[in-house]
Amino acid sequence: MNSNQCDSKDFTRGTIAKNRKTEKFTAQGRDLKAMFEPRTVAVIGASRRKETVGYAILNNLIQAGFKGAIYPVNPKADSIDGVRCYASIQEVTVPIDLAVVIVPSASAVEVLESCGEKGVKAVIIISAGFREVGEEGAKRENQVREISRRYNMPVLGPNCLGLINTDPIISMNASFSRTMPRPGNIAFLSQSGALCTAILDYAKAENIGFSKFISFGNKADINELDLLSYLKDDSKTDLIMMYVEDLVDGRGFIQLAREITGDAPRPKPILVIKAGRTAQGAKAAQSHTGSMMGSDEIYDATFAQSGVIRVNSVEEIFDLAVAFANQPLPKSKRVAIITNAGGPGIMTTDACVRYGLDIAQFESSTIEALKKVLPPTANFSNPVDVIGDAQHDRYENALKIVLNDPNVDSVIVVLTPQAMTDIEEIAKVIVTISKETQKTILTCFMGFVDVAFGVKILEDNHVPNYPYPEGPPRALAAMCRYKQWVERPRTSVRLFPVKPSQARSVLKEAVDKKQLLLTIDRAMEVLRAYGFPVLPCSLATTETEAASQTKKIGFPLAMKIVSDQISHKFDVGGVRLHLKSTEDVTQAFREMKEKVSKQMSNAQIRGVFLQAMSKPGKEVIIGMKRDPHFGPIVMFGMGGVYVETIRDVIFRVAPIRELGARRMVESVRSFPILKGVRGEKPADINAIVECLQRLSQLSCDEPSIVEIDINPLMVHPEGDGASVIDARIVVDPAFKEKK
Amino acid sequence: MNSNQCDSKDFTRGTIAKNRKTEKFTAQGRDLKAMFEPRTVAVIGASRRKETVGYAILNNLIQAGFKGAIYPVNPKADSIDGVRCYASIQEVTVPIDLAVVIVPSASAVEVLESCGEKGVKAVIIISAGFREVGEEGAKRENQVREISRRYNMPVLGPNCLGLINTDPIISMNASFSRTMPRPGNIAFLSQSGALCTAILDYAKAENIGFSKFISFGNKADINELDLLSYLKDDSKTDLIMMYVEDLVDGRGFIQLAREITGDAPRPKPILVIKAGRTAQGAKAAQSHTGSMMGSDEIYDATFAQSGVIRVNSVEEIFDLAVAFANQPLPKSKRVAIITNAGGPGIMTTDACVRYGLDIAQFESSTIEALKKVLPPTANFSNPVDVIGDAQHDRYENALKIVLNDPNVDSVIVVLTPQAMTDIEEIAKVIVTISKETQKTILTCFMGFVDVAFGVKILEDNHVPNYPYPEGPPRALAAMCRYKQWVERPRTSVRLFPVKPSQARSVLKEAVDKKQLLLTIDRAMEVLRAYGFPVLPCSLATTETEAASQTKKIGFPLAMKIVSDQISHKFDVGGVRLHLKSTEDVTQAFREMKEKVSKQMSNAQIRGVFLQAMSKPGKEVIIGMKRDPHFGPIVMFGMGGVYVETIRDVIFRVAPIRELGARRMVESVRSFPILKGVRGEKPADINAIVECLQRLSQLSCDEPSIVEIDINPLMVHPEGDGASVIDARIVVDPAFKEKK
Repeated sequence: MNSNQCDSKDFTRGTIAKNRKTEKFTAQGRDLKAMFEPRTVAVIGASRRKETVGYAILNNLIQAGFKGAIYPVNPKADSIDGVRCYASIQEVTVPIDLAVVIVPSASAVEVLESCGEKGVKAVIIISAGFREVGEEGAKRENQVREISRRYNMPVLGPNCLGLINTDPIISMNASFSRTMPRPGNIAFLSQSGALCTAILDYAKAENIGFSKFISFGNKADINELDLLSYLKDDSKTDLIMMYVEDLVDGRGFIQLAREITGDAPRPKPILVIKAGRTAQGAKAAQSHTGSMMGSDEIYDATFAQSGVIRVNSVEEIFDLAVAFANQPLPKSKRVAIITNAGGPGIMTTDACVRYGLDIAQFESSTIEALKKVLPPTANFSNPVDVIGDAQHDRYENALKIVLNDPNVDSVIVVLTPQAMTDIEEIAKVIVTISKETQKTILTCFMGFVDVAFGVKILEDNHVPNYPYPEGPPRALAAMCRYKQWVERPRTSVRLFPVKPSQARSVLKEAVDKKQLLLTIDRAMEVLRAYGFPVLPCSLATTETEAASQTKKIGFPLAMKIVSDQISHKFDVGGVRLHLKSTEDVTQAFREMKEKVSKQMSNAQIRGVFLQAMSKPGKEVIIGMKRDPHFGPIVMFGMGGVYVETIRDVIFRVAPIRELGARRMVESVRSFPILKGVRGEKPADINAIVECLQRLSQLSCDEPSIVEIDINPLMVHPEGDGASVIDARIVVDPAFKEKK
Repeated sequence: MNSNQCDSKDFTRGTIAKNRKTEKFTAQGRDLKAMFEPRTVAVIGASRRKETVGYAILNNLIQAGFKGAIYPVNPKADSIDGVRCYASIQEVTVPIDLAVVIVPSASAVEVLESCGEKGVKAVIIISAGFREVGEEGAKRENQVREISRRYNMPVLGPNCLGLINTDPIISMNASFSRTMPRPGNIAFLSQSGALCTAILDYAKAENIGFSKFISFGNKADINELDLLSYLKDDSKTDLIMMYVEDLVDGRGFIQLAREITGDAPRPKPILVIKAGRTAQGAKAAQSHTGSMMGSDEIYDATFAQSGVIRVNSVEEIFDLAVAFANQPLPKSKRVAIITNAGGPGIMTTDACVRYGLDIAQFESSTIEALKKVLPPTANFSNPVDVIGDAQHDRYENALKIVLNDPNVDSVIVVLTPQAMTDIEEIAKVIVTISKETQKTILTCFMGFVDVAFGVKILEDNHVPNYPYPEGPPRALAAMCRYKQWVERPRTSVRLFPVKPSQARSVLKEAVDKKQLLLTIDRAMEVLRAYGFPVLPCSLATTETEAASQTKKIGFPLAMKIVSDQISHKFDVGGVRLHLKSTEDVTQAFREMKEKVSKQMSNAQIRGVFLQAMSKPGKEVIIGMKRDPHFGPIVMFGMGGVYVETIRDVIFRVAPIRELGARRMVESVRSFPILKGVRGEKPADINAIVECLQRLSQLSCDEPSIVEIDINPLMVHPEGDGASVIDARIVVDPAFKEKK
């Protein structure tokens, strides 16, 4: 399926899974078992020289205690570190599951071909010198892809750090990392190899373990979708962290990520850093990997529609990951804070409010219970202040009581290392309580040095700690958002009964005539065929025709000039409003023709467009633009100059579901205006939601359409629907229908 | 001077300094030399028991190597740790500069009195048990204040950690911290003692030194203004970090902080964490201005007007502090990035753009020079990628070349620990180059473990390092903003020639009549007296009067009902617009009176307000609300429902200068609308700036005014000024004029 098209029929709930199995994911969901769980690994380009990557890979495999057999390949060595060497892969007599290739890029293609001949099941090309170094390299990379496809032999890389599987029954470090991470339930995949080295270093310092650690480099063959598809079913992985600079298939990503994050029997959160957010950043990305960058709004939309949590920094991804990987999701946003210091308690409260959490209101029984165990100078309401001289017993009592409150779904425990504070004992009581509760507990033992032993106790026992008070609220807020995503009501892509052939014939005519912009009457025809609330309207080529058509439209009405050469009708006097009678209409017709002809003498005037005046309402804009990589992207925004100035708009990748359309409308900052301010009746939000879905359907059905602007869509008060006032549809004159 | 009032005459540039010296800062700028640089220190409540604060303080003083003499006071001990003890302060025969009091709060007052009698020059009360524990404690705290003022004996605390002065010629740790920080050029002051312990711990881990470290607790006597005043002239302090929960005198803070951050011969940046951001729920207010103003907006305004950098977290304050304290301010926002890894380079670029920095465009000679020293696969434009196998020579060459480019004002050096990376050598070349350049250099050696020794080399040599790529851009952006602040053009508070007595008599009448809300005609009188662009208008009590007054106003005109009981004129049919003739006016008068009387039968109708219709323009809102702690706060926002919904407004503490008023207008997100969109002429921004200054002058002159709303102010195209369309002025009926 071309990412530039989508048949919205395929996206109703029943058919998604079927579709994926039969069409898409036989291609995408490659069998990577031999790559992740090999019994035999050949290291082609293994070296004796310790400063080389060829040595590092072999050494890492040995040091990590790989449970299968290792076959170094090097024509110039008999053995390396006591392991027998082979002159070539062909010389190895046993079948090889995985070959790790470290030879210079110039010989890599040849080596890969020999792997194919030998029947190697999977390959990792570590070597650089491909697409990232220019034309020559890109050619080599294409050969790599061709060979891998020809032999049905998945290839990871080139230009990557390699792959690590910490599963004790595999225990494979097929990378040149400086460090083997400890086992854990987090999978990490990265388009940047260098970032991998840094990530492993952070993880070492912060005691974080990984299930799989994958550097996928230039993704000549295997890409993020193949890897996600594998990790979806990986029992050792509970959480996926990603660093990407682009996505190969936005639409495929949305489908697969939705399943992983929400629809699978055991949903797994995905946290992503998408670099190249900005124009300048995207430029850097181009010169680095040669990858094309989509605009950042599209990526935002993609992640939002996938339930993927997008973060801004390496620090944030770790902060969130440890919370997701170690603690249960909170039931709701109601958080309690326990602290031994006022200031840090306030800072934590501030951060909770800033990140959108609710400070839980305690039951009166909770406050009474706290009064019994805390000194009179303590604070018994939320945030609970157990006072600077608190020791573990006070923390223990307060934590138990607060967790027992039905209004509390998560607790943040704040500790400052004061004179009397028995830090490690406090850590121990938190750990014990954490093991007994289903509620979320995060801690902030402030500082680095004095609290270090206590922090180790917490982290070793799945209680994530943060050195600063802003950490726990940010992580909790992300967990709450994810919880909402997992539990959201599921809606399907709604397919309205429409008249596709009517729309298509109009569009085909425009394409055939090489006409970029449809005239307003044609645009309205297309929209009417797709059931948009188009006002009564008609094209009139003569004064008499105009007069006669007023009957079926009714008064008052608007008149707009129709000419292929005029796109800004207002500016040339080509718009008249509030015409109240047939006389008004005929006179306006004459005047308009005259005025427009004078201003644009070379414009061919096809006639005038007569349109009933709309009932009053609020102006919104809905639109679509087709992206070369993501296909049709639909947009919603409030109308008017203010909102345009502050860019208060939102995008989603089509097709959109009903809930998605509703969330779009609710997401703009100026949404309260639609709900009604100053005692107004709310606008008909359902009508917008329906129009957005119809727009999605039209965009998916008709790939010849490049852009649609419905501006304004006039939204009437609740129950009264909406009206399309003006519309622009742009087609691709070079479009060719697929047979 | 009462903070609730301000005499704007005092704020013109010449008089500020004079004013401060003569009036305010003789009171505020207390002599704290004896507290910070004592030759003799008494420890009252010193103890032999090691787990007590009384022991910790004495021990800290001794351990830190205090250069003066220590006099422990404890009636039950002859000596502690070999130091002779005294039974009471009176028993000490030498004069005492500083007494540190650790006795229980119940006896603290008595001890303080004895200190006063003894002639002690300054006191620190460590003990808790004052205002923070309720009424009894508050009483004690008032006694503390009374005694300190009576003896002119400055008191720090109570309820604090104490004070540290790292100056080698003093070397005093008069606190119960677990740690003595190393000397440095940063002063830290904190309202929270517990936070101090955490801050010292972070600083120890991150190798950060302090000049002074001050926990000021309940500020019974000495407050943040006294301390800032001292630090302003402290030669050991280059940068001030603060944690505050409130400010005792917002207006005084603005004056003093402006001098420290920008006007002193050696300006010092101030970084502040203001905790308690959470909206305290703007109470029922009479105006738009009031309802949109929370306490946090006032603090934002205060810090913005003071050149103070407000940060969100402890982590951020450290990140910024090390940059400010160690590196020169960059000349402008143009930054270069040097990296050995593409991905982290993109992430750094993204962060630079997000924080508003400019990615420098290199001269072609720079690119040529880079090509000579870097491998062909490197990236020679910004961000410069020296490639993964880069060693110190490549970093050295690239850094020197890039620093030499006139378009580069700062450089961020990014390093990932890859196989070939000679981390410590690279750190050394950066340090060497940093010592030779005037440009700003920050580094991001990614990770914690592998890079640790390199990072130590950097930090020991004043090159701040950040573990994540988002750190350097955030710090650089703050430095650039501060640089702009220091170099901003200075404008004075402009005093327009106005007619204060006219305004005052109207206001006095309202106060005398206990009338909360001025009727529109009175409000316009006040504004006219202060030179606002009030449209021709008049009050008419009878139909005949209305008819006769149309002459001086002209047509078309608007008619608005005037009644003390009616505040929402539109809702009761009390507004008619576009009246075009005397007949229109007389008829409208009759209809309006009838309609309003019917709807609000108990309203006393004083007449109608006739007002010329305004020329077209764009609607903005300007307003003022008087805050009990900060005095008059002026507001600016675009008019209309959109902007109200998204709260696109800005506040400033009056009096405002011309530049400040201009910045207000420019700061709202919808400012482009005023500049003109879609080819419109820009609006008359100068007119808004003048109105804001007049509003500031009026608010400062007339303390009886509680709120002002000018909504809308219609702003005409550039050069055509503005018109006040509607105005609400609320006075305090309980206001009493000062004699």
